Amino acid sequence: MKRKLILITNDDGIAAPGISNLVEVARELADVIVVAPDSPQSGKGHAVTLSTPLRLHKVSVFKDVEAYECTGTPVDCVKIAMDIVLKNRRPDLCISGINHGSNASINILYSGTVSAAMEASVEGTTAIGFSLLDYSFDANFEPAKPFVKKIIEDALNGKFGKGKLLNVNIPNLPEGAIKGIKYCRQGDARWEEEFVESIDPRGQKYYWMTGKFVARDTESGSDLEALEAGYISVVPSMHDLTDYSLLEALNNRKK
Amino acid sequence: MKRKLILITNDDGIAAPGISNLVEVARELADVIVVAPDSPQSGKGHAVTLSTPLRLHKVSVFKDVEAYECTGTPVDCVKIAMDIVLKNRRPDLCISGINHGSNASINILYSGTVSAAMEASVEGTTAIGFSLLDYSFDANFEPAKPFVKKIIEDALNGKFGKGKLLNVNIPNLPEGAIKGIKYCRQGDARWEEEFVESIDPRGQKYYWMTGKFVARDTESGSDLEALEAGYISVVPSMHDLTDYSLLEALNNRKK
Repeated sequence: MKRKLILITNDDGIAAPGISNLVEVARELADVIVVAPDSPQSGKGHAVTLSTPLRLHKVSVFKDVEAYECTGTPVDCVKIAMDIVLKNRRPDLCISGINHGSNASINILYSGTVSAAMEASVEGTTAIGFSLLDYSFDANFEPAKPFVKKIIEDALNGKFGKGKLLNVNIPNLPEGAIKGIKYCRQGDARWEEEFVESIDPRGQKYYWMTGKFVARDTESGSDLEALEAGYISVVPSMHDLTDYSLLEALNNRKK
Repeated sequence: MKRKLILITNDDGIAAPGISNLVEVARELADVIVVAPDSPQSGKGHAVTLSTPLRLHKVSVFKDVEAYECTGTPVDCVKIAMDIVLKNRRPDLCISGINHGSNASINILYSGTVSAAMEASVEGTTAIGFSLLDYSFDANFEPAKPFVKKIIEDALNGKFGKGKLLNVNIPNLPEGAIKGIKYCRQGDARWEEEFVESIDPRGQKYYWMTGKFVARDTESGSDLEALEAGYISVVPSMHDLTDYSLLEALNNRKK
C-alpha cells in the first residue's frame, strides 16, 4: 500500500523543538514534508502576507525529511506548500505544532498553529493543531508523544472525516500522568489586556501587550476543564463562523 | 440622555477613505473615538503583536473627533483602545471599516476588519465589521451610508444582543440600486492559491501570493448569494469555533 503523506508546519519556527518532536512521531506513520516559518510567528492568527513577497528555501533540519523554511506566516506556509511544494499532490493530513504553549479556549483565535491547520481544512485536507501547555523552549514533549501518535493514526484512518479540523491541547504532565483524551467544546474565556507602558531612550512612550487569562465558563464540557483534570483536550473546530441561532432569530423577527 | 460611545477602527489604516466615511455616519448617532492602524493591515486576520512594543499617537485626522493611530494590527488597536485609551469606560459599540474590498464568505478568516470587531465582541462589546465590495482607494461609499447608519442604529438599540458580532458586506452599486439588507450565513468558498514566481536583482527566487476565489455553495442563504442579488449581507458571526455536530458524533461513538 502506498504510504500516506503528511504536511507539517508550526508557528514557533522550523528550529523549535516542538516541530521536530512532531516530525519524529509522524514519520513513523507516513511520508512527511515540512514547510514551516523561518522565524517565530506566535500570535499571527490567520494572517497572510499580501504586501511583500515570500521566500522559500529547502533546508536540512530534519534527518531524511524534505523540509522548507518560508519567510511568511503559518497560513502562508500552508498555502505555498499546497501550490509550490506539493504542486499536484494533496496531503492526506496536515498537522501543525507541537506548539510551545496553550491554544485552548479563546487562544484558538490568535494561534498561528491552529490557523495553519484551519487553512488546510478550508482547502479540504483534514488538519490538526497540537499544543503543549508549556511555553518554555525546552519543554518536555515525551509524555505527549504516544497520544499525538494515536490521534494522527485516527485521523489517517478517517475517524474525524475529510477536511475536518481538530484543536488538540496537551496538559504539561510527566510520563504516565496524562489520563487520556477527551472530546470537548471550546472553553469560554478572554484575555484582559494589561499594557505595560515604558519610555524608550529617545523619550518616546511605548507599550508592551500583556494580559490576564480569565475563564468564564459556568458549564461543564470545555477544553479548559479537561486540561485541568489531566486530560488531552480535542476540540473539533470549524471555519464557518455563522451564529446560526442569532441568524434564525433575526430572520424570524422579520417575518 | 447620555450620548452613547462608539469605538471605530479598520484595517486599511487611519488615512483610508473608508474609515472617514464610517466616522462621518457614526458621529451623527453617538460620541466617537477612533483607534486605527497607522498603516494598511489588510490580511492580518486575528494577529496580535507580541514580540515588539506598540506605539500610540493622538492625531487630528477627523475634524472634532478624538483619534489615535497605532503601530499594531487591527486587533492590537482594539486591545490598546480598551486598556489605554478608554481605560474604565466601555464603548456601547465597536465598528470596523468601511473596508475597501469584500470580507464575505471565507474572507472573514483573513480579514483584519472583522477580526478587530470580533476582538471587541470577545470582550463583551457588540461589534460590526463593514466592507464595501470595491478594492479601490477611491471607492464610492455614498450609496452605502444610509444602510450603514440603519445597522449602527439597530445595534445601538440592542437589536442584535450584547456582545454579538456582525459581518456586513455591501455590494458595489450606484445610489438607489442597493435592494436592502439580508441576514445570511457565511458562504462556502475558498481561495485557490496561485503563487507568482519571480527573480530578484540578486538572482534569488521569490513568490507573490495571489489566488482565485472559488465559491462552493450548492444551497441558498449565503452572503455571496445576497450580494450577487444586490442586497447588503449581514452575517451574525461568532468566536466559538466548536464543530458541535462532530463533537456529538465523536462522543456518541465512544459510548
